[in-house]
Amino acid sequence: MELGLIGLGKMGGNMRERIRRAGHTVIGYDRDPELSDVDSLAELVERLEGPRVVWVMVPAGAPTQSTVDELKDLLAEGDVVVDGGNSRWTDDEKHAAELAERGIGFVDAGVSGGVWGLENGYALMVGGDDEHVARVQPVFDALKPEGDFGYVHAGKVGAGHFSKMVHNGIEYAMMQAYAEGWELLEAVDSVTDVREVFRSWQEGTVIRSWLLDLAVNALDDDEHLDKLRGFAADSGEGRWTVEAAIDNAVPLPAITASLFARFASRQDDSPQMKMIAALRNQFGGHAVESRSEH
Amino acid sequence: MELGLIGLGKMGGNMRERIRRAGHTVIGYDRDPELSDVDSLAELVERLEGPRVVWVMVPAGAPTQSTVDELKDLLAEGDVVVDGGNSRWTDDEKHAAELAERGIGFVDAGVSGGVWGLENGYALMVGGDDEHVARVQPVFDALKPEGDFGYVHAGKVGAGHFSKMVHNGIEYAMMQAYAEGWELLEAVDSVTDVREVFRSWQEGTVIRSWLLDLAVNALDDDEHLDKLRGFAADSGEGRWTVEAAIDNAVPLPAITASLFARFASRQDDSPQMKMIAALRNQFGGHAVESRSEH
Amino acid sequence: MELGLIGLGKMGGNMRERIRRAGHTVIGYDRDPELSDVDSLAELVERLEGPRVVWVMVPAGAPTQSTVDELKDLLAEGDVVVDGGNSRWTDDEKHAAELAERGIGFVDAGVSGGVWGLENGYALMVGGDDEHVARVQPVFDALKPEGDFGYVHAGKVGAGHFSKMVHNGIEYAMMQAYAEGWELLEAVDSVTDVREVFRSWQEGTVIRSWLLDLAVNALDDDEHLDKLRGFAADSGEGRWTVEAAIDNAVPLPAITASLFARFASRQDDSPQMKMIAALRNQFGGHAVESRSEH
Amino acid sequence: MELGLIGLGKMGGNMRERIRRAGHTVIGYDRDPELSDVDSLAELVERLEGPRVVWVMVPAGAPTQSTVDELKDLLAEGDVVVDGGNSRWTDDEKHAAELAERGIGFVDAGVSGGVWGLENGYALMVGGDDEHVARVQPVFDALKPEGDFGYVHAGKVGAGHFSKMVHNGIEYAMMQAYAEGWELLEAVDSVTDVREVFRSWQEGTVIRSWLLDLAVNALDDDEHLDKLRGFAADSGEGRWTVEAAIDNAVPLPAITASLFARFASRQDDSPQMKMIAALRNQFGGHAVESRSEH
Repeated sequence: MELGLIGLGKMGGNMRERIRRAGHTVIGYDRDPELSDVDSLAELVERLEGPRVVWVMVPAGAPTQSTVDELKDLLAEGDVVVDGGNSRWTDDEKHAAELAERGIGFVDAGVSGGVWGLENGYALMVGGDDEHVARVQPVFDALKPEGDFGYVHAGKVGAGHFSKMVHNGIEYAMMQAYAEGWELLEAVDSVTDVREVFRSWQEGTVIRSWLLDLAVNALDDDEHLDKLRGFAADSGEGRWTVEAAIDNAVPLPAITASLFARFASRQDDSPQMKMIAALRNQFGGHAVESRSEH
Repeated sequence: MELGLIGLGKMGGNMRERIRRAGHTVIGYDRDPELSDVDSLAELVERLEGPRVVWVMVPAGAPTQSTVDELKDLLAEGDVVVDGGNSRWTDDEKHAAELAERGIGFVDAGVSGGVWGLENGYALMVGGDDEHVARVQPVFDALKPEGDFGYVHAGKVGAGHFSKMVHNGIEYAMMQAYAEGWELLEAVDSVTDVREVFRSWQEGTVIRSWLLDLAVNALDDDEHLDKLRGFAADSGEGRWTVEAAIDNAVPLPAITASLFARFASRQDDSPQMKMIAALRNQFGGHAVESRSEH
Repeated sequence: MELGLIGLGKMGGNMRERIRRAGHTVIGYDRDPELSDVDSLAELVERLEGPRVVWVMVPAGAPTQSTVDELKDLLAEGDVVVDGGNSRWTDDEKHAAELAERGIGFVDAGVSGGVWGLENGYALMVGGDDEHVARVQPVFDALKPEGDFGYVHAGKVGAGHFSKMVHNGIEYAMMQAYAEGWELLEAVDSVTDVREVFRSWQEGTVIRSWLLDLAVNALDDDEHLDKLRGFAADSGEGRWTVEAAIDNAVPLPAITASLFARFASRQDDSPQMKMIAALRNQFGGHAVESRSEH
Repeated sequence: MELGLIGLGKMGGNMRERIRRAGHTVIGYDRDPELSDVDSLAELVERLEGPRVVWVMVPAGAPTQSTVDELKDLLAEGDVVVDGGNSRWTDDEKHAAELAERGIGFVDAGVSGGVWGLENGYALMVGGDDEHVARVQPVFDALKPEGDFGYVHAGKVGAGHFSKMVHNGIEYAMMQAYAEGWELLEAVDSVTDVREVFRSWQEGTVIRSWLLDLAVNALDDDEHLDKLRGFAADSGEGRWTVEAAIDNAVPLPAITASLFARFASRQDDSPQMKMIAALRNQFGGHAVESRSEH
């Protein structure tokens, strides 16, 4: 089939390659003319035969919104837009409604895979009406990993990004689980080779996983992670997961703890712990470390 | 080689079988004569040629302590005792010291594998002096999974059980991660097939793991887990992990949250939430549900 | 001065009374004609001499929004609207902008005090421009407790409700603190009179507080809180506090734990703990309590 | 009455003074001859008329243990030892049993009050048999605050320290509650005077407390706590509270979060967050801050 693909960065570029390898035609557009197959969104749309499928692979938020706005004007009834970026599921509902005004279908697709996706395939979590999803199915089949897994039509519009968001929330807590265990093992004298403990866990244990394999890789590069700072960004999905949980009154203690640990990791000095220090100073005359001594 | 094995329950019985399949001689003792190869611990010891290796596979705490006490009297200088049960690492140091008074070596071995161990091998995390570990090595090689992983000599006495304990702490938080994600997905209307979302994650995602495979198995048996109650026991290692963290001033927010979620799951009614309800009633005249209305 | 007051429920009615006792004129409107001084919002506005001050004391969300919409049409340039309800601070910014289109000022006021407010005064946290706040000051002075505390002009529009929201977030964690301590004391045999322990804490301790006094009252009514269920609602501010924290990348572990404890308290059975039970069943053959057995 | 008091540091010295002001005789012993009324423990015991009451006010752990050991030899049947230090409740049971071998009674007393105790009195939480507590009652009455509160005979041996320990656990979470709220208020632009918000809360709010008063004092000294580092020690009771909770399967999410926040505050760089950074680097090619760049 023929696909229009907007956004040809690292992720989008690799996806174009994998879809082409499967025998499909991909016309790509990127603001960077070096990467783009066409000069404009208008040209992209023009070169696709209707009914068209256009896959948007640009950053969530304003870039995705403005692309959807432009496509709403450029596309025609019966066309389908796929948002494969990291949009919040609540944006999906909005985008679907906006495009529906013009008879344009909408599918949201959460995409996992990173740098391994080109060779191993991308896990895809998809939301939207059956008829719209069916239109994109050959592309989904091209992108997904071989085998029985790695693709799901999770439900209505938004369900794809919602599922991908929860995937990332789970990922936060799994990473935190290994990280906490690693710190505790490193803290005691009796365990003299923590890296080998991690390595051994790769077979026969309850906690073997792809993330564990990555942890072993990382420890092989840098046994005690001395080259790194204990500093972790967060990418939006973790925050949205907690917000979705609050909306639904679902307690998420481990995932939220993992998100907060990242927040704290980015603080040079913790304001709340200054208040704890101040209170201790007030009520007990506890010695506190004053700034001037440091 | 020749091994004495004490405790022939589900776990010990399968281990005896796997060690025998590897060509070693195992003389097993169990209080249940149906399972036992000998009539008494004394007979077990007598039938082994010195220097002996005796593997203790009985419940942690008093049963392990009394077995160690008996072996201390029965064994001779140069023999080695392996504790393969779920003992706390602090007990290992004590047992090693007690046995050392008689010149008997001690090795602790954390064993993971459960019902799959017989066929797939048992992951082993071992602590103790090199010379004592070396004495048991053929048995470790027989028990461990094939391949490069699944066995580690983690460090000094206690390091095996400590590593296994941390493994279980990590396991608690990983299970909690999937469980939180599952509950959130089940809570929203847009995601119409949560089981298929989980299934799809088994390939191409960051969170693929053996535990995820088990979760899919469980959902295949009972799609919404309607047949289960939200009730989870805890087996000791989770508690010890948090206690070890406190001893070492290591923050373990996700693992501890997972442990507390299990505690709470076992309460018919939460005393602390009664106090919250009582306070709300006091200060705001908030309506509270009184017992008599239920 | 003269005040229009919209919403004469328990809270609004008591506030009208307290403001009148301070010598001001209050014209109140409520949908319930039994409570109302006038027949309509239009009549309320008509009976006030300009420039008017109108205090909105209705539920947050749709009721407040529709009241603001109506007032925007009825009021005139130079008038000031006060939102004394439990609105989210983000609504304040929206309301202020809407009213500013017509030259109408806006002040947000977080109000604490509950059933004791009529006699003891209401704590007020106020946001808005100085000139608008100054217009309402006599009413604030009438409502606030005697003494030096209980009133603050916290900052710009939204700062009042934001401060009140954080107050409630702190309240959640303080309540949780006492509740956790109470449950732990009740759990051990050696402490034979938990109520008297709580009572003793009312003087000379670090944790004495008004909430502690309430806890003692509650225990005097029902020593072991047997008449209550461990079930706690949450009123919005706790959720918003966590959401604001996420927006600002501020870790709030204790407040969030308190919110999640309330969520969990309202579940008859915990879906996430069913998943934990299912996983335990899968990997270990752990006995699980099946629904059919209960 | 007559009291022997061992340990005349800041706390013990002030207590001696307060007991003397109440008209009792206190003979104090301290290793520092400048502070001590006698030259040795033996002299202290000799100078007291039997049956004696001796109050131990030395650091928990080894110093208290060795003092109890010495007193066991020096005292006689019918005498009573009070441990007013910060001992763990499990030590109390041990000490009581040891002293009982010689017919010596034992009472444990958790003492709160800090630098204000001399003037305002000390809150006392006491454990032990009625007859032993009765022997010390005049001293308790001298130490406690005036009024109806501040003293409780909480239960059996250990109940005093257990109650004080829980008091401190609650204190941790209350401090954390205010600290989290303060950080969130400081993080937003709309709230322009956080200190005044805190000050206003001292009257008419749900969260008014002595700790809040201290927070206002601290902010008056240093409005944004710029002079402090976000670094907080922990004194043992917080850890023991969590350990007691684990022993009793009581979930303590807020108190434990508060303890872990202190642990994290003392780490220059977080090992666990290094692992998070390492994993992110592995699976996504996420940019990480390397040590060499800082």
